[in-house]
Amino acid sequence: VGFVLDRQPYVVPMTYARDGDVLYLHGALSNRTLRALSQGGDTCITVTLLDGLVLARSATHHSMNYRAVMAFGKARELTDTAEKLEALRAIVEHVVPGRWNEVRAPDARELRQTLVLSVSLDEASAKVRSGMPIDDDADYALPVWAGEIPLRLVPQAPVDDPRLAPGTEQPADLSAYARPARKGAPAWNPRSES
Amino acid sequence: VGFVLDRQPYVVPMTYARDGDVLYLHGALSNRTLRALSQGGDTCITVTLLDGLVLARSATHHSMNYRAVMAFGKARELTDTAEKLEALRAIVEHVVPGRWNEVRAPDARELRQTLVLSVSLDEASAKVRSGMPIDDDADYALPVWAGEIPLRLVPQAPVDDPRLAPGTEQPADLSAYARPARKGAPAWNPRSES
Repeated sequence: VGFVLDRQPYVVPMTYARDGDVLYLHGALSNRTLRALSQGGDTCITVTLLDGLVLARSATHHSMNYRAVMAFGKARELTDTAEKLEALRAIVEHVVPGRWNEVRAPDARELRQTLVLSVSLDEASAKVRSGMPIDDDADYALPVWAGEIPLRLVPQAPVDDPRLAPGTEQPADLSAYARPARKGAPAWNPRSES
Repeated sequence: VGFVLDRQPYVVPMTYARDGDVLYLHGALSNRTLRALSQGGDTCITVTLLDGLVLARSATHHSMNYRAVMAFGKARELTDTAEKLEALRAIVEHVVPGRWNEVRAPDARELRQTLVLSVSLDEASAKVRSGMPIDDDADYALPVWAGEIPLRLVPQAPVDDPRLAPGTEQPADLSAYARPARKGAPAWNPRSES
């Protein structure tokens, strides 16, 4: 999440959820990023999935394969309780689909202490690089190995909190996160946007 | 890489290398991000390694485990050929250590056509979250599964460029990228900063 404060750019990692033409962000009331954004400043929210390292025959044609989207918009603070709940639901469901119905919902005190922003997606652009390096014609004759080292963000087996209440079992649907990534499919987020 | 242009923040994914108190960025002469930065504007360069999803018993305590660093500084364009070469070497070596000596070095034309920036790291801050969710005391009695789903960025087996010159073999040192990540060790960049 990028924003400007006193002419200085800031880029801060945050969780988010998308609902149609809106992105939701949330955090504590004291969160500096959210407070800056809630003043109506412009934001650029960039999501990047790194797919691989691209090794060329020449130094300058080395690159990376990735999918990135830059979304531009203005933030507004959500004050309506129902809207805030819906945004928090979307964020939890974005992290683990189905999770919202398994956990304790936010209570009135938590809702008051949570700052929730809605960012309208006024403009967005995507950039994708995939495939092999593009070398100069003459360099293809060089005996230098070239190709791609694919990278996958792979969920590992879930780790129990040591303070689980006695008898609490891992939900069956979490096991999807421990499966190895399918070849050719990005491992990140089973529910990724198309 | 975050920067400001006409009061609008931008966040753009880029490769980089660090050499002491300096970060290097590079790209084509036409690269809008680099051109904006070379005019002396402030930048915030944020690197985030996502380590896991943190699932709590209550909705609002869901979180992520990550290591992030935000570096603030000003960019200057490198014009000295030796400095540009050194920066490009650092970037290639950051992607794959040892690669620089295996590939064709940049020639004079490529150096002229490549914009290379040095960003002085005037100020930086790191933020790390690790471990288990922090739930409210009363919620630990709930029969809700809680814990962490670790995420690892795992290199897959290198893929040959179909246009390799006949007889070109994969270098032995690339095989390190195809090894499964060690438990507890971040899979991203074998040469990551400490």
